[in-house]
Amino acid sequence: MTTRKHFGIIALDADDTLWQNETLYHATQEKFRRLLANYAAPEVVNQTLYETEMGNLRHFGYGIKSFTLSMLETAVTLANGHLTGQDVKTIINFAKEMVNSPTKLLEHVAEIVPQLAQTHQLMLLTKGDLLDQEAKLARSGLADYFDYVEVVSNKTSETYAAILGKYRLRPEQFLMVGNSLKSDVLPVVAVGGTAVYIPYHLTWAHETVTNPTHQNYLELDHIGQLPDLIKTLESGS
Amino acid sequence: MTTRKHFGIIALDADDTLWQNETLYHATQEKFRRLLANYAAPEVVNQTLYETEMGNLRHFGYGIKSFTLSMLETAVTLANGHLTGQDVKTIINFAKEMVNSPTKLLEHVAEIVPQLAQTHQLMLLTKGDLLDQEAKLARSGLADYFDYVEVVSNKTSETYAAILGKYRLRPEQFLMVGNSLKSDVLPVVAVGGTAVYIPYHLTWAHETVTNPTHQNYLELDHIGQLPDLIKTLESGS
Repeated sequence: MTTRKHFGIIALDADDTLWQNETLYHATQEKFRRLLANYAAPEVVNQTLYETEMGNLRHFGYGIKSFTLSMLETAVTLANGHLTGQDVKTIINFAKEMVNSPTKLLEHVAEIVPQLAQTHQLMLLTKGDLLDQEAKLARSGLADYFDYVEVVSNKTSETYAAILGKYRLRPEQFLMVGNSLKSDVLPVVAVGGTAVYIPYHLTWAHETVTNPTHQNYLELDHIGQLPDLIKTLESGS
Repeated sequence: MTTRKHFGIIALDADDTLWQNETLYHATQEKFRRLLANYAAPEVVNQTLYETEMGNLRHFGYGIKSFTLSMLETAVTLANGHLTGQDVKTIINFAKEMVNSPTKLLEHVAEIVPQLAQTHQLMLLTKGDLLDQEAKLARSGLADYFDYVEVVSNKTSETYAAILGKYRLRPEQFLMVGNSLKSDVLPVVAVGGTAVYIPYHLTWAHETVTNPTHQNYLELDHIGQLPDLIKTLESGS
């Protein structure tokens, strides 16, 4: 072996790293604004929904069901006594459409994931609803390439430390790839792992970071560049 | 070592094995029937809710958020155009009360779990909402005794086979303890593991099994008897 380093596991975030996600939330939020158009201006709907989501995060966590309960609560607040059973049904149907919508892979993913799986153990490491993420993985056609799936309630440095412990990995054996500086990059760097940041054009306000203090992560334009980067990192150059 | 066998992991179900759960759903369902008392008889509420839950299982899975979306959908159906925003808010508040209700340990659990942790690696292995189960574990005071936590979307023989693979265990090294024949016992026996059934006095209709065909599992009256049973199993007698 001439390789100086080998990542024991390459962990990939799912939503907006492998497949579209924020797009689906944006589209649903557009329908939600239209549903409430008689009761509130679009920007009021957005603002109230975001505040409701932030308030509900500690109760309900991430994912479509939590988002739906927050839409319902927002609708009650804004419709001011005029909310109908039909409106409630419409919002619940938004949720069913979301959970059953096709998994749209981002560019390069369909080629890159099978390629990486030939040389490394891959982990899908994501927040959100367990059932929802498993269903998306199943529909993606990529399930067979992942050795491990970890759906976690949050991605903090404690979360990553626990993953390293569970899989008996030293930090330098762990590479994480994702589109969120807050969840996929900074906490990985904090525990000594390697993080690759691949920005997506849409980011949920909750996932944005102002002035990140760590700068020692890598950044790519798209996931198609990942295999070459890994080769470089593992050759130690 | 005189021990002929040692379980590499003892996995414990959570809801109604370690702590009360079905009681909480029953209490909420009672409040839900009272809320809808003007629209439908209690048995109609129960029946419609159960059918709605079964229909939604494939969309939303298990747990409080899924249950809440099913209550809301049932309320729309039964209130027949009379559902108010206040009713919707009340139902969402049921959910917040549920997720924040104290974790009530079942008898013997507070002594037995620390005792087992001295001799074995313990895993919490449960269905339901990820965040909700993690929160219950944190509130239970038992989190430090568990080496592993696995929240799964379903408990089938495939689920258990995947757990064995992930933790590199042979089936005979795996012991599962739980209150559901359908989820905790029969699929474990099917993959060659050892299963201990500890019935709870309330069982959700969805978890009941008629005429189980496998009989090769063990049954205890309460979890206080578990350490002695494990000693017997491991001594090979």
